[in-house]
Amino acid sequence: MSFAPTAASIPPTHPRLVLRQPDVQAPVHLHPLNPLQFILRAAEIYPEKLALLHPDIPYPVSYSFSVWCQRIQNLAYALIKAGIRSGDRVRSCLLLSAIIAKLPYRLLLTLTPGLINIRLRPSEVAYILEHSGSKIVLVDHEYQHLLPPNLATPVIVCNDTGRLGDPYEKFLSDGRAFSQEKGWNGLEYHADEDSPALLCYTSGTTGRPKGVVTTLRGSYLAAVANAFESRIHLESTYLWILPMFHAAGWTFPWAAVFGFATQITLRTVNYSLIWKHFLNSAVTHYCAAPTVQIGIVNDPAARTLPRPISAIIAGAAPTASLIGSLEEKGIQPIHVYGLTQYGPFTRNYPQPSWATMSLQERSKLMARQGHSFATAQDVRVVYPPKEGDKVLVDVPRDGATVGEIVTRGNIVMKEYFRDPEATAKAFLGGSTFNTGDLAVMHPDGAIAVVDRSKDIIISGGENASSLAIEQELASHPDVLEVSVVARNHVRWGERPHAFVILKAQATSKWHGHIEDFGDELKTYAKSRLPGFACPEWVQVVPELPKTSTGKILKTDLRKIVAKL
Amino acid sequence: MSFAPTAASIPPTHPRLVLRQPDVQAPVHLHPLNPLQFILRAAEIYPEKLALLHPDIPYPVSYSFSVWCQRIQNLAYALIKAGIRSGDRVRSCLLLSAIIAKLPYRLLLTLTPGLINIRLRPSEVAYILEHSGSKIVLVDHEYQHLLPPNLATPVIVCNDTGRLGDPYEKFLSDGRAFSQEKGWNGLEYHADEDSPALLCYTSGTTGRPKGVVTTLRGSYLAAVANAFESRIHLESTYLWILPMFHAAGWTFPWAAVFGFATQITLRTVNYSLIWKHFLNSAVTHYCAAPTVQIGIVNDPAARTLPRPISAIIAGAAPTASLIGSLEEKGIQPIHVYGLTQYGPFTRNYPQPSWATMSLQERSKLMARQGHSFATAQDVRVVYPPKEGDKVLVDVPRDGATVGEIVTRGNIVMKEYFRDPEATAKAFLGGSTFNTGDLAVMHPDGAIAVVDRSKDIIISGGENASSLAIEQELASHPDVLEVSVVARNHVRWGERPHAFVILKAQATSKWHGHIEDFGDELKTYAKSRLPGFACPEWVQVVPELPKTSTGKILKTDLRKIVAKL
Repeated sequence: MSFAPTAASIPPTHPRLVLRQPDVQAPVHLHPLNPLQFILRAAEIYPEKLALLHPDIPYPVSYSFSVWCQRIQNLAYALIKAGIRSGDRVRSCLLLSAIIAKLPYRLLLTLTPGLINIRLRPSEVAYILEHSGSKIVLVDHEYQHLLPPNLATPVIVCNDTGRLGDPYEKFLSDGRAFSQEKGWNGLEYHADEDSPALLCYTSGTTGRPKGVVTTLRGSYLAAVANAFESRIHLESTYLWILPMFHAAGWTFPWAAVFGFATQITLRTVNYSLIWKHFLNSAVTHYCAAPTVQIGIVNDPAARTLPRPISAIIAGAAPTASLIGSLEEKGIQPIHVYGLTQYGPFTRNYPQPSWATMSLQERSKLMARQGHSFATAQDVRVVYPPKEGDKVLVDVPRDGATVGEIVTRGNIVMKEYFRDPEATAKAFLGGSTFNTGDLAVMHPDGAIAVVDRSKDIIISGGENASSLAIEQELASHPDVLEVSVVARNHVRWGERPHAFVILKAQATSKWHGHIEDFGDELKTYAKSRLPGFACPEWVQVVPELPKTSTGKILKTDLRKIVAKL
Repeated sequence: MSFAPTAASIPPTHPRLVLRQPDVQAPVHLHPLNPLQFILRAAEIYPEKLALLHPDIPYPVSYSFSVWCQRIQNLAYALIKAGIRSGDRVRSCLLLSAIIAKLPYRLLLTLTPGLINIRLRPSEVAYILEHSGSKIVLVDHEYQHLLPPNLATPVIVCNDTGRLGDPYEKFLSDGRAFSQEKGWNGLEYHADEDSPALLCYTSGTTGRPKGVVTTLRGSYLAAVANAFESRIHLESTYLWILPMFHAAGWTFPWAAVFGFATQITLRTVNYSLIWKHFLNSAVTHYCAAPTVQIGIVNDPAARTLPRPISAIIAGAAPTASLIGSLEEKGIQPIHVYGLTQYGPFTRNYPQPSWATMSLQERSKLMARQGHSFATAQDVRVVYPPKEGDKVLVDVPRDGATVGEIVTRGNIVMKEYFRDPEATAKAFLGGSTFNTGDLAVMHPDGAIAVVDRSKDIIISGGENASSLAIEQELASHPDVLEVSVVARNHVRWGERPHAFVILKAQATSKWHGHIEDFGDELKTYAKSRLPGFACPEWVQVVPELPKTSTGKILKTDLRKIVAKL
């Protein structure tokens, strides 16, 4: 043990994984929150741990936290070398850039950066690239055709091989020389935690996609909350089923790194492949919308797991039937609710008293969107607000009065990019963020989404929730999946029209007399729903139109019934 | 299901547990971080859950989150009614005030509020009350004698009965009328998260106690990190063994609430009582310094636990012998390192490769203070800095070169209260916080504290770490606890003097020829330590002088050897 008090010129033996402080003089006790911190800590504490596994390509790629962190640094310098100079934005987003660096699904990177939904049409992609002012595009080889043919910005194609000769690897290597010379000291932290972290566009089921600006502070707090609520830790393995371009993967790209977990990425959502990983890759966590969860539990490869997996569910409420099937397989559902903004901002918190309930009773309670998430602020259900409203009035906690969900706090987006009008409208003039989702509040303070405003069916003057109808129809033993929309009715104004996918064995059972199934389902509905909410029409279909994120496209279904 | 879009005048059926936004107009996506948010969420989501159990009094008291939250509100109004108007400070600290409200140990509340160490002398208590400008004092009946007799500020005595007639309950009830009238709407959130959260005083082993000002932002982030790292959740039960006045209980008062855990409080640290709770109260977590941990594992009531408990250890590094004893009982040590400021800012992160090591090997690694904690920023070991140093130079990562631990970031205090000189000195003129602890950095980036500067023994010109010597001596099978200080030596300048407490069976073994034990321990040391680090003197003692937080008072030991 030696003590050398003044050898100030001796260089450290190992570069520290710390970004330079911004030049502004900040107090010692204030440090801008930034999810980038997570990967620096992970690479410092668990450098050799498997951080990323991308097994679904001819030569599977895997990176330790140390290697991944180095690739992030290389990418940062490569972007700078490519002329990306607007500095702050690029520098602040290294972590996600690097997740993109191994192209988990097939992602396009805009400058801020943002992830573009691969299931959009080329015209929408062109709009997003134009609107976001993208300066460089990273694109997976399978999705080049989505790009406008006359794109002025540089395009880096990734063949997703992780090998020498891949144009993306070539691009990364451009940054390597600078990396070796300057290390982390050549980059610096963003001084303002309120700066943009990501620019993701809404899926735009109606109108133009809107660019959602999230902040470093919000992303940090949302990711920490998500790791805590999902219990993601060193021994966890997160399987990517939810596409990362949807709401930044509900912050799991960051949450998994914060918890030092391993992430496994796939190129396609293939249920038998998912089961292969469930059974062989020590998977402990995944996220998916109910429709994907239905596909998972009904796949022929599905079986009871040797050890439990946590499934984070959002996008729609899980039905009793789905909850039962998941639990039977050893999959523990965590039901959350969020928007395109960040990850979840409410969660269904199971109560001890539920343990002794029947599945039917319990699943009704589990279908509620619940209470505010860790690090989120209060979530309210208020009488429909108008823009500029300063005082919002909460609906009674009666589980019956429908209002709109509003919230505020650190897990809310900062703004819609270059769209002050839409921003002002969403923020009701500055007091709170209006989600536009309709919900009731139960006496215990849990919210339950009843519908998007446009999904309410006004049947004989009564408001029928298509969601509530779907919940009941899904409990019929022959129903695999169901979606209900309003269809014009001469007498009642509107009536529910149900689109149903049958389970495999039910298809043969009803073969040749499918209309009898419709009658049976209507009778089934009458025993469980008020008359105005019973489906007037039942249509058996082989599949339902869905968004890339697995949400059913009710707009498409409404177009179908409009023609009937 | 009804839909009432304009019934704006209908009052909500249930008051919402939400504080009014500050009057300043803040953007929707920015909400000041404040640990008070934790108790509001807990009371809303798990109102009936057992939040606090105080079993160690004639009529045990227990509060659900809902009741506890209500008592916090009552206390807030009671303080306001008592003339406490400096507003911001009081309002910002309701959570902790309310923990104090059931007087877990024996606490004094100053205005900010702050907790005063009950083992201080009356003169020191008087100094703290004076220096902090306390406007009201809440005191446990057992500790009234610590207060200055001529105290000008109002004093509220708590008899810790939780029952009618208790002066503290009377005080609380003063706030009840206002509570019922105004609810949470009569109080409001602090607009600035950089405002003081707590004012705790250092234990002041040398000189006057210093008032450590922590912020709402820092407390929030430290508590969330602590809940995450300790894995505190709904099913957890935290037993208070660490006194809450020490560094705000390492943020566990807040972390436990954030995780919806139950807290059990005791009036005294009594090992057999602790074991009673370990075995009967579903305890899952506790914190304690090594010296208390030694008492726990060596108590006659100690046995192997039916299910594991996590023990957070700080204050000094655990020895191999202690780690072995804890693990044998089913207690899993989590070794962290912090200061009076907040909770931990480093943690020993176990590596997968340690699993196959021997206890001796592994415990050497577990004794290191490790890497930066979740939400903490970089922790460095640098060549001894001087005030005003702008560039600090890291020592090499060789596990040998001794430097000082410095850090910065959100888990660092804001300042020393009314002491700009001490603040500037601690912050080295504004760049970083100097802990004053001496450490080495290992090649893997883990720090290992070697000593406080004053605890280094300069023996024959060599620097011997008293901590390293203690680690070795503690591995002798007859040693229960050991502390080593420098003693003047004619030839070598200084030499180590070891104070040793023997294990119970060893006491009878060496009875009558205790000096033989000294010789044996010296021989034992020679086989494990360099000559200059071997104790020249071994003194067997029945007990060691300790601070209230269980740290050994080396100042007292040094006084003893100075007279020899």
